[in-house]
Amino acid sequence: MNVGGKHFRTIWIKEDDPRVVQIIEQRRLPHEFIIVDLTTVDEVAVAIKDMVVRGAGLIGATAGYGMYIAALTAPTTSREAFLDYVEQAGKTLKATRPTAVNLEWAVDRQMLAIQRGESLEEMMAFAQQTAQQIADEDADYCRRIGEHGLTLIEKIAARKPGEPVNVLTHCNAGWLAFVDYGSATAPIYAAHDKGIPVHVWVDETRPRNQGARLTAWELGQHGVPHSVIADNVGGHLMQHGLVDLCIVGSDRTSYTGDVANKIGTYLKALAAKDNAVPFYVALPSSTFDWKMRDGIREIPIEQRNADEVKYMDGLTADGRIETVLLTPESSPAANYGFDVTPARLVTGLITERGICAANEDSVLSLYPEKRTTS
Amino acid sequence: MNVGGKHFRTIWIKEDDPRVVQIIEQRRLPHEFIIVDLTTVDEVAVAIKDMVVRGAGLIGATAGYGMYIAALTAPTTSREAFLDYVEQAGKTLKATRPTAVNLEWAVDRQMLAIQRGESLEEMMAFAQQTAQQIADEDADYCRRIGEHGLTLIEKIAARKPGEPVNVLTHCNAGWLAFVDYGSATAPIYAAHDKGIPVHVWVDETRPRNQGARLTAWELGQHGVPHSVIADNVGGHLMQHGLVDLCIVGSDRTSYTGDVANKIGTYLKALAAKDNAVPFYVALPSSTFDWKMRDGIREIPIEQRNADEVKYMDGLTADGRIETVLLTPESSPAANYGFDVTPARLVTGLITERGICAANEDSVLSLYPEKRTTS
Repeated sequence: MNVGGKHFRTIWIKEDDPRVVQIIEQRRLPHEFIIVDLTTVDEVAVAIKDMVVRGAGLIGATAGYGMYIAALTAPTTSREAFLDYVEQAGKTLKATRPTAVNLEWAVDRQMLAIQRGESLEEMMAFAQQTAQQIADEDADYCRRIGEHGLTLIEKIAARKPGEPVNVLTHCNAGWLAFVDYGSATAPIYAAHDKGIPVHVWVDETRPRNQGARLTAWELGQHGVPHSVIADNVGGHLMQHGLVDLCIVGSDRTSYTGDVANKIGTYLKALAAKDNAVPFYVALPSSTFDWKMRDGIREIPIEQRNADEVKYMDGLTADGRIETVLLTPESSPAANYGFDVTPARLVTGLITERGICAANEDSVLSLYPEKRTTS
Repeated sequence: MNVGGKHFRTIWIKEDDPRVVQIIEQRRLPHEFIIVDLTTVDEVAVAIKDMVVRGAGLIGATAGYGMYIAALTAPTTSREAFLDYVEQAGKTLKATRPTAVNLEWAVDRQMLAIQRGESLEEMMAFAQQTAQQIADEDADYCRRIGEHGLTLIEKIAARKPGEPVNVLTHCNAGWLAFVDYGSATAPIYAAHDKGIPVHVWVDETRPRNQGARLTAWELGQHGVPHSVIADNVGGHLMQHGLVDLCIVGSDRTSYTGDVANKIGTYLKALAAKDNAVPFYVALPSSTFDWKMRDGIREIPIEQRNADEVKYMDGLTADGRIETVLLTPESSPAANYGFDVTPARLVTGLITERGICAANEDSVLSLYPEKRTTS
């Protein structure tokens, strides 16, 4: 999407130097827009591990480009030495965020592609092609999520001509988490680009503030009207008719429609249900867990560092990034990373293949190849 | 309650100098415990206006002591000059926070009391007595709320011997908002002081963080185990059986049981309902609005300064209080101060007279003098 009027993806090969992969330093957003060069596998690994890049789609794409860099920097003395190096690079990349499914998938896909090359040159070329394909596919899936979700916004817009459609979103399921478009934001960008007036309520998404930092930034850069709100506000807005539609992303969704997403999503789904506001989850099909039946029982409770709750960083008046303590120094804090919204609270799932209800039958009718004969 | 092992109220007459009223500088909490001397009406007015003190009960008590200071500093040339000055002081105090009902009530009560004095000395003495009475009554009401609420905690404790009772609270309805004990915290302190193990989940309460700043501080100082959590977390905790009871305060409650309280309360009430967790509201009866039938329709939506959402202050590593920007500079923010939890989500109201259901009949059975013949 656009940054300062120019189109960007979240990762790309440098225009005048194909040995350099470039990414956006997401930890400095929204205060600074910095582009970082990656030229070694270690630099890629650090970028993933230290969350310079984040989001399932973007992590997968970064791993893909990481393997391309591995192929570029591998020893050319023999095929064996080349492949050993690339394989080792794959292990290094996989170890950066062990729970990121897309990471493992991208590395494995690259290994298969590279091994098919008959010469070192062909292996390098395949690595580049595959990295590009992984990124293109991610963008294409998100674009299609946008097209399907757009129909929901169009219907609401038709009911209130001249007035903006108010969409509430939580966390950052935006283009910054993918390669382009985003998942939850894709329908919003599609509507905005088509001239349909939209306004987005952006949950700040404590404790890491991905909404206030990233979603607000990317919407602002693309020119989409929005307001940042505390996570506490959504229920009140829905009670007073100020939200037409909720769209959130997902970290993992059971094939029965239970949605694991950033902590706090469940509370917004409850408020949506209580006020008859449609609550949609946008996700590429790679986010489905085809083995998980009961999301609430089966997804483990992840606890993160309490300091994420106790401390906050931001920009000082004189332009420095400073970290401040919010709580009493001695007060403990608990930091749960996500919650599970039960399928009964989800109006529908927006996938790259279309929109379905949040239940097994409906999901499998979109993905019939996932049916198992039992 | 206790601060560093010593008992404090939130406002008191200085021990060795009855011309000085002392308060806690609440804006510096939790990072510094500063006691401020008040010796003029202007100082009292500024303390209320600038939120050095806050909370319905404490604002009322501060207005009461403010009128005592007015009586101490009034001209003694004539009864008329004395009363003119005191009356003017009352107007000044009332204007500091025009929506605070307790403020007006305390000033009017003081005016009536002072006017009954036959001499200047008697008027001053009545002002002091009345200030003390207002504070004592506030503390006594909260103490009784604690006794009634304690029964709820005792019942839960009996069901899980040896394990702490987990109570979730939102915002600060603690002793810092009253003269002592607090409303939502009173049952917690009563249980803790009786040796019943309790653990409190403290919602940080964005955007002003009264939970993370004040509730965490006062619980910590009194030795009550607690954990600060992001406002997003409560639903997840309730889904997993980690909350036994919710107790919140109220800014205004209709006699039909609709509860206006800090923004975000409604979301927790929804989660409590969805998970069969009891959701109680603790309030002195002065918080009831005896004229309001429909809280959701009748309570206006108050919008506060957007900078409360966009900026945050806290303590830097080198001990300074610093304000930092959290969002893109150009992103708008919306800041709604409170929401209304409909009576259907409220298990009960804990008042100084006992516990009742959140409906007209039950409320009026505790307050029969409020019945109107129609």
